[in-house]
Amino acid sequence: MHLQAEIAQQPAVIERLLSEGAATAAAAKAIADFNPVFACIAARGTSNNAAHYAQYMFGGMLGTPVMLATPSLHTVYGTAPDLSRALVIGISQSGEAEDVRAVLRDANQQGALTLAITNFEDSPLAQTAKYHLPLLAERELSVAATKTYTAQLTVIAMLTSALTGSEVMRKELSALPKLAAQALSLCEEITAWAQRYRTINRLVTLGRGLNYATAREVSLKVKELSYIASEGYSEANFRHGPIAAIDCGHPVILVAPQGKTLAGMVDMCQRLNEMRAETLIISNNSDLLGQGTQAMTIPATPEWLSPIPAVMPGQIFALQQALARGYEVDNPRGLSKVTITE
Amino acid sequence: MHLQAEIAQQPAVIERLLSEGAATAAAAKAIADFNPVFACIAARGTSNNAAHYAQYMFGGMLGTPVMLATPSLHTVYGTAPDLSRALVIGISQSGEAEDVRAVLRDANQQGALTLAITNFEDSPLAQTAKYHLPLLAERELSVAATKTYTAQLTVIAMLTSALTGSEVMRKELSALPKLAAQALSLCEEITAWAQRYRTINRLVTLGRGLNYATAREVSLKVKELSYIASEGYSEANFRHGPIAAIDCGHPVILVAPQGKTLAGMVDMCQRLNEMRAETLIISNNSDLLGQGTQAMTIPATPEWLSPIPAVMPGQIFALQQALARGYEVDNPRGLSKVTITE
Repeated sequence: MHLQAEIAQQPAVIERLLSEGAATAAAAKAIADFNPVFACIAARGTSNNAAHYAQYMFGGMLGTPVMLATPSLHTVYGTAPDLSRALVIGISQSGEAEDVRAVLRDANQQGALTLAITNFEDSPLAQTAKYHLPLLAERELSVAATKTYTAQLTVIAMLTSALTGSEVMRKELSALPKLAAQALSLCEEITAWAQRYRTINRLVTLGRGLNYATAREVSLKVKELSYIASEGYSEANFRHGPIAAIDCGHPVILVAPQGKTLAGMVDMCQRLNEMRAETLIISNNSDLLGQGTQAMTIPATPEWLSPIPAVMPGQIFALQQALARGYEVDNPRGLSKVTITE
Repeated sequence: MHLQAEIAQQPAVIERLLSEGAATAAAAKAIADFNPVFACIAARGTSNNAAHYAQYMFGGMLGTPVMLATPSLHTVYGTAPDLSRALVIGISQSGEAEDVRAVLRDANQQGALTLAITNFEDSPLAQTAKYHLPLLAERELSVAATKTYTAQLTVIAMLTSALTGSEVMRKELSALPKLAAQALSLCEEITAWAQRYRTINRLVTLGRGLNYATAREVSLKVKELSYIASEGYSEANFRHGPIAAIDCGHPVILVAPQGKTLAGMVDMCQRLNEMRAETLIISNNSDLLGQGTQAMTIPATPEWLSPIPAVMPGQIFALQQALARGYEVDNPRGLSKVTITE
């Protein structure tokens, strides 16, 4: 089974990325020189969840507003918006996503600064962008992306750190491989969940801010691997409608590490408990962990890096659900590793 | 029951909006003078789906890239991104959404041009923005928003039309009340669906480009009113993972009016049919309508206005599912009309 091995490789991939920072430094310099008014990120699926992380990192730490691209305006409608003042980033594991590439091609013509984040130096996307940040994750054989996702987050974190020039962030980053390894070793706790949740056919995952990306990615992994109808929400948006679908026993994963968004997540957990939902907490806050139906501990982490250890229990939960249901883990039905949409 | 009445009022609300264009003209002039590099829209729930429509309208017709705001950066993290070169729009039926207002407050301080779209002239959000476009929808009593949603789309369409100055668009807009009435009268077809789909507990809705908003909104309405685990996707994003969750008999609503995105939707319908999914088509293309398990006809419509007639069958489907399941239509569990998130 490739998936299990690839999940286990994540600390090593992160370590490799951190040890080769030259490409990041060059891209950071080009971005600082270009001085973008905003950023635009084109991506699909898992890579699009990494783009959500970048929204909060660039927006919150660099003051750069981030939009997610609307590829169909470039490919289907042929009416590309004006991205000339933007840093335009394409994220794609394979670098083959044709519509992501179309956004970067238009952006190049408009005079934008383009950057690709892929696992293949010679991929069409990497060749189209002015700068390329490689994921250095070695080939990912499982269709469900895991190590390339955390590699994407790491690249975004490294780029942000380089652009701020913060010594504190640089130091915190250097501890990331160890944190990731610790998170994986703690995941043994989650094995107990596999049999208990074999029977569920729906799932909600919640996070906010930096960990909205995590909620989305956990939900996508669960859906791809175990075909559960799972949906990831921002905790704030969830209150505006989707919460109506929660009834007694409805499983809800709350991704809620220590940090500024914790208070809102604690409040949501209480509300869900009152509704007698089944609350599954992924956190490093012991008070909150004590309030869930289930508790999954992640290591203490600086908030901006927390999406990396926080997604790992979700990856393992998804893998275990697939196994507990007898599904093929490396090749989910209806999917292929490279999906080309136009 | 308020919901049914409010769905029926939509053509009249649209007509009222079209007859009072002074506020739109003033806002359009201010936007043209300000000449924004990009737009940023803050909204939650149904209003956020209207924001997705604006992404394609402003992006495709005005060349203005649109980002969806990240309110937690303003309220929870206290690290607002630099929106000084942006047109910043807050959309909220009630005008009470505190985090949407926080985005506009920061934007005002940064020197951005701010605009509110709400149903209440004296609401906090309307008072915070430099310009206000009223929805003129009269009070909406049902918790699930319907007439205020199509009013939001109409305001966005009017604003775009005013900014382009296109005579063709102005004429097409003027036919919208009649189109909306026609769409509602065609919806009688959908009554037959209510009993057949009483038993489903999961649903996928698909659209692309302009009608990605429609897929999202139909999904939200169904979830709020009938508690079905429904999720709305862009057809392109759906191929990158979520399609794995589809198996034989899985109900999928395809929102696919005539236009540039039709070909991709036809391809997706064929793929879903091969998977023996239950395909429910909302379209005005007779070829595609013939390919679904169920067909719901909407009137012939210019593509840019199609999200307004296309959402109506979805509103009625959601209403009928609630009735068929014996749920309270006007007050879904766990929701209130005004949701204040910070």
